[in-house]
Amino acid sequence: MRIKETAPSTWIWYPGDYELWLGNGMNNRRTERGAFFPPFWRTDSHYVTVEFSKKVFIYAPEPIEIAAEGRYNVKVDGKLQSGQPKSIILSRGPHQLNVKVYNQVTPPALYIRSKSVGTDGSWKVTAEDKEWIDQSGKVSDTSTTVYMNAGYWNFNTPEQRPSTFKLAMQPMEAVETKAVNDGQLVDFGQETFGYIRLHGLHGEGAVRIHYGESPEEATDKEHCETLDRIYCSQGYVTDLFTDTTIVIDDEYTLAGSKAFRYIYIEVSGSIRLDRISMVYEYLPETCRGTFRCSDEDINRIWQVAAHTMQLTTREFFIDGIKRDRWVWSGDAIQSYLMNYYLFFDLEAVKRTIRLLRGKDPVTSHVNTIMDYTFFWFISIGDYYMYSGDKAFIIQIYPSMKTMMDYVLSRTNENNMVEGMAGDWVFIDWADEKMDKKGEVAYEQLLLCRSLEAMVRCGGIAGDSEGVTEYAVMAADLRCKLQPAFWDKDKQAFVHNRINGKKSNTVTRYANIFAILFGYTGTTNEQAIRNSVLLNDNIMKITTPYMRFYELDALCLMEEHHQVIHDIKEYWGGMLAFGATSFWEKFNPKDIGTEHLAMYGRPYGKSLCHAWGASPLYLLGKHFLGVRPVKEGYSEFIVSPNLGGLEWVEGTVPTPRGDIHVYMDDHRIEVQTRLNNGYIIFSSSTKPEANKGPIESLGGQRYRLKIRHDIARPQQDGSPAVQYSDSHSAIPSKGKEEGVIEDSAQYNDSHSPILSKGKGEGVVIRISYTAIRIIF
Amino acid sequence: MRIKETAPSTWIWYPGDYELWLGNGMNNRRTERGAFFPPFWRTDSHYVTVEFSKKVFIYAPEPIEIAAEGRYNVKVDGKLQSGQPKSIILSRGPHQLNVKVYNQVTPPALYIRSKSVGTDGSWKVTAEDKEWIDQSGKVSDTSTTVYMNAGYWNFNTPEQRPSTFKLAMQPMEAVETKAVNDGQLVDFGQETFGYIRLHGLHGEGAVRIHYGESPEEATDKEHCETLDRIYCSQGYVTDLFTDTTIVIDDEYTLAGSKAFRYIYIEVSGSIRLDRISMVYEYLPETCRGTFRCSDEDINRIWQVAAHTMQLTTREFFIDGIKRDRWVWSGDAIQSYLMNYYLFFDLEAVKRTIRLLRGKDPVTSHVNTIMDYTFFWFISIGDYYMYSGDKAFIIQIYPSMKTMMDYVLSRTNENNMVEGMAGDWVFIDWADEKMDKKGEVAYEQLLLCRSLEAMVRCGGIAGDSEGVTEYAVMAADLRCKLQPAFWDKDKQAFVHNRINGKKSNTVTRYANIFAILFGYTGTTNEQAIRNSVLLNDNIMKITTPYMRFYELDALCLMEEHHQVIHDIKEYWGGMLAFGATSFWEKFNPKDIGTEHLAMYGRPYGKSLCHAWGASPLYLLGKHFLGVRPVKEGYSEFIVSPNLGGLEWVEGTVPTPRGDIHVYMDDHRIEVQTRLNNGYIIFSSSTKPEANKGPIESLGGQRYRLKIRHDIARPQQDGSPAVQYSDSHSAIPSKGKEEGVIEDSAQYNDSHSPILSKGKGEGVVIRISYTAIRIIF
Repeated sequence: MRIKETAPSTWIWYPGDYELWLGNGMNNRRTERGAFFPPFWRTDSHYVTVEFSKKVFIYAPEPIEIAAEGRYNVKVDGKLQSGQPKSIILSRGPHQLNVKVYNQVTPPALYIRSKSVGTDGSWKVTAEDKEWIDQSGKVSDTSTTVYMNAGYWNFNTPEQRPSTFKLAMQPMEAVETKAVNDGQLVDFGQETFGYIRLHGLHGEGAVRIHYGESPEEATDKEHCETLDRIYCSQGYVTDLFTDTTIVIDDEYTLAGSKAFRYIYIEVSGSIRLDRISMVYEYLPETCRGTFRCSDEDINRIWQVAAHTMQLTTREFFIDGIKRDRWVWSGDAIQSYLMNYYLFFDLEAVKRTIRLLRGKDPVTSHVNTIMDYTFFWFISIGDYYMYSGDKAFIIQIYPSMKTMMDYVLSRTNENNMVEGMAGDWVFIDWADEKMDKKGEVAYEQLLLCRSLEAMVRCGGIAGDSEGVTEYAVMAADLRCKLQPAFWDKDKQAFVHNRINGKKSNTVTRYANIFAILFGYTGTTNEQAIRNSVLLNDNIMKITTPYMRFYELDALCLMEEHHQVIHDIKEYWGGMLAFGATSFWEKFNPKDIGTEHLAMYGRPYGKSLCHAWGASPLYLLGKHFLGVRPVKEGYSEFIVSPNLGGLEWVEGTVPTPRGDIHVYMDDHRIEVQTRLNNGYIIFSSSTKPEANKGPIESLGGQRYRLKIRHDIARPQQDGSPAVQYSDSHSAIPSKGKEEGVIEDSAQYNDSHSPILSKGKGEGVVIRISYTAIRIIF
Repeated sequence: MRIKETAPSTWIWYPGDYELWLGNGMNNRRTERGAFFPPFWRTDSHYVTVEFSKKVFIYAPEPIEIAAEGRYNVKVDGKLQSGQPKSIILSRGPHQLNVKVYNQVTPPALYIRSKSVGTDGSWKVTAEDKEWIDQSGKVSDTSTTVYMNAGYWNFNTPEQRPSTFKLAMQPMEAVETKAVNDGQLVDFGQETFGYIRLHGLHGEGAVRIHYGESPEEATDKEHCETLDRIYCSQGYVTDLFTDTTIVIDDEYTLAGSKAFRYIYIEVSGSIRLDRISMVYEYLPETCRGTFRCSDEDINRIWQVAAHTMQLTTREFFIDGIKRDRWVWSGDAIQSYLMNYYLFFDLEAVKRTIRLLRGKDPVTSHVNTIMDYTFFWFISIGDYYMYSGDKAFIIQIYPSMKTMMDYVLSRTNENNMVEGMAGDWVFIDWADEKMDKKGEVAYEQLLLCRSLEAMVRCGGIAGDSEGVTEYAVMAADLRCKLQPAFWDKDKQAFVHNRINGKKSNTVTRYANIFAILFGYTGTTNEQAIRNSVLLNDNIMKITTPYMRFYELDALCLMEEHHQVIHDIKEYWGGMLAFGATSFWEKFNPKDIGTEHLAMYGRPYGKSLCHAWGASPLYLLGKHFLGVRPVKEGYSEFIVSPNLGGLEWVEGTVPTPRGDIHVYMDDHRIEVQTRLNNGYIIFSSSTKPEANKGPIESLGGQRYRLKIRHDIARPQQDGSPAVQYSDSHSAIPSKGKEEGVIEDSAQYNDSHSPILSKGKGEGVVIRISYTAIRIIF
């Protein structure tokens, strides 16, 4: 037995409940011109009474420290302890601990700590949806109680009560303040988020603050999307929205957080202000993923995308910071994928998946949107692939089943989905009117992929019966896609089928996803590229949302040059309009303030939208070329591609450590301590490597296996994937060797990455000759 | 258009949500020797975001006053208003009002008041389990939103916020305080409920309070069921259970409410107390129902039953006030039935039914008990019969369906129920071991009756498809009861059937309910009486819970003499042991403190248990003889019966007014303004009446119809059932005429009832001759 001060311990709760509660706070913070604007889907909440349970063994009598959020009781070996004990003594031997906590206001949570006992994810928890008591009136043993393993995050001390969680804060100064009309226009230099702070506020009257992602919005008092009003009188300041009044101090910080780059502020009466600053509010994240290349436009795009991602990664992955500030499933799945190449924050992914799901019964699609329900399923498949986190799959699987029950209860006679009353068939924001009726091809593809996710997750959760059913349904539906939607003449999937009649319209959506999901043979794939993806006559996509998938599909078809071109044109186009974060929608044909408008409102468009940041994903997955082949990168591919760039380099985070990649036209370097990978590349000459044999795959394709047998046997308890040359220096591009700082922020990463490598893992160097693409 | 100050208005919420929230507070107040003791079934909570909606017409511009519990927004004709407006002006014309309220802590609630608009039960409300928005991003009209009508109670001013609801309080003095051992034993004279108050508290040290329903319990510091501990130090007093500390004042009232007649109090250190009193806490109720008769024992039993009922009728109908203080369905259905003959508080019934149901999904039986699920269904049928409240049936019916889905998903191949994992098959507390396995006859009868309740409620809710299905299932099951459980030799229903094998054991339960539900032909009914009910060899019932049904069944078989005898013996037996409220269980064979013990604990038994009060129901229904024949007493019977008493008299409340009944051996008087009733009675001579013809029913049975055609046509807008002689004086038993005080409390009603009649309605006087029963 090891001597230790206390066992590791963390606050625990009913899995998902903290997330629902935290999400309710988040989703209910949206305002529209000073009015509260909650979501329009059902908002669930936490179970108010839960029981936590654990069997422990104590070697010598020891005191147990107990803290709970809520009213609670404690049973030791079935015996109820008096009062709400803050500590108890456990005697030597085995013990059964049960703690019930009731909390109407915030999720019931428990923290227990002692020398040998600590609350953690191994504790069982029940909301008592099942428990049997016998007729003697005593609660029976817990054999028929359905327990889950407890949820937790990172609240590791008794003082860090989960209900007191707050994002991090950082005071920031304005870049410029200038007089405009009767007020002041304040510029904070780039898109940001937080609370306006007024310094030296005194006098009597009103302060009117108008927020803008653009100067046009901030100064348009009648149409700006968000605003604040405070009134000062007799030494007190009152916030009109929150209806709170406090004494005027030298500093007054607005109660509500907002998104902005600019604010336009007017005061009335005798109000005077010395200065205006802000308090930046953010979720501290580390940019484990990095990217740099020879093209500074692309580098700037990556930086702005990372900034966009930082701003929209909060308690949850939200859509945009100005307007909705809500969690949307279709937006979130893209945030997750970008996150796998930037922060690799798995907790944020799990939180968001849980919040989106809510509780049973399922009475509508996720966010009311049919496609978003499917993206929810698919995102769990993605999560498993990137994280390898079986425990979460097992825990979420029962609610995947009830969600799928809902979906399947609404299929038509062809086992396909059609929009029914209450369903929103979204697809995409398009400038042209889009038909959403009947069997929309895109939706069937997503359903099919969702069923495949059920098969995969069901297997992990041990639901063999379900796996069989879902597999049959998925196969059946997949066989129906071609007959139902493929148009031989057009060599494309058509948009939809109504009452058995195939539509004449071709849109990009189903065709993109047929490629992404591998739902079409090679012949069709090339056909789709020519007849749809590279066909300018097919309605163009004007949201980064759908461009994400379009460019992903083009990369799968080795159109990397095209994708680099598109990224520079599309995202570069936003930068050319002064973007400091990426937008909800961008139509290069728009002019002037048309770029700011959406939903029929002059500033309705979000200028900081998570789905705008997809280059993070595209560059990491397809140019650094790193992706998992098996769950949690237990097997993976590094298939870097220059796409016409002179060199690319960067880091991709994984649950087993980072993968560093460098590529130029004659050298590929991969540094990693992961095992079971393949470096795949093309070369016009016979390549050479410092490690392991290079296999030819035919044509000009080559593969080098990152093999386990080159790893040194484990001796020190560290992960088994430590390589033999794990502490060697890493020369790269002639820069000095060094150590990566784990906490490197996205915006201070201006030096090549490999040069700052931690010196961990193997370095594989390949000499090769890039194949010149002739256009 | 009538000129009025403001429209009637009341606070509204999502139906059932306030009840869940209030019930969570209630159910989580149980303590056991100072430890918190929450329920062991799933605790649901309110929807945190709801939307209220109403179409209104305004004749002249008027201000609308708005108050909400929660953060809210207001839309007028789809246009979001700025901030959280406390008032808005509505212009002339039609308007659509929508208000969204978010409240994590207490149920979102709304109060709107103006000259012509007021929140009430006609407002629609949704938790947004369904809503469609179109792709322009604007919320559509509400056509696909599923709205319910709002829930409400009696919070009729903006200041009466629903979340601030408290029961009424009344300071009360002790009857006697005497020194016992090292402390003081305080007697409050009868069973009561509330908060102990300490006067002149000063000094330093502990105050230890031990509560007792008996002096034995209060003075047994080691075993009393409830206790309190406070510590005084340096001018502060700390409550050990709630962990709250306040400054010592002259008066200190304990934080937690308790049930007791006695308390035993000890102090330590330098603590001194002047005096101990209490604050009685109660739900104000009016005893509309009354009963008196020639037997003072019976009168005392009725009074103590009424006191028991008052104590257990709180925010909800609870089981007992000392121990569980929880809402249990099987207990509650009896409280409802007693309530129909005492308070006629329909709001309390609805609150309790809603709380017991909770929210979907159904994951266990109500209170985890199979029989209690069935009583939940049956209680709704009862409620409709006594109240005629269609609106509630329509509102609760969808959750009856999902509850029944759960039940039917667990039936066996015979479409019968058997206890499965997680089910508690309760039946009754019995002193002998009872078999709960297999197909328990009693449970099948309850299921059958539940299906019949579904048929009835489905008809009201317009679910014709469901009605057909449930009717078929009910009929099918009813046909199976006789073959499955009837034993020809024993002339009784046996207890259960296991694996197709009929048991040899006969218990009273199924036999009682076969009579109550009319599930047996007349021949069997008489057989059951002899072979089971009046057979001392069949295991006796020792709970008032099951005696309720046993005596109800005996009355249906005209065994009124026997029932009066049993009431005097059984309830009188408790009084003989000093009861001031009726008990959870009473076995006349117990001796001494055996009467206090239950669940293996010396004072485990509740001495104030709602189900102990059944004489209220039995005397009203079977001796005053008043019961509805059609919903809400739209048709009713008055069939009084002396059961060997010299005279009975009393009042039965109904939704259409009271029914007063007097009977002695030669005279029956009924006073009521209800229409469509029948007075049914037996007479050995030809009876005569002051109103209407008396029909002979054959034998010595007679019937007098209370007919609509004797009513005077309506002229003043008052109810159409006003009779021609509605304001005549009511002579009765030679007492002076007068007016009943509506607020007459149960414990000051010592004068005959009819003498205090309101003078409303018709008085029917029948001269007859009672039939002497010869034993």
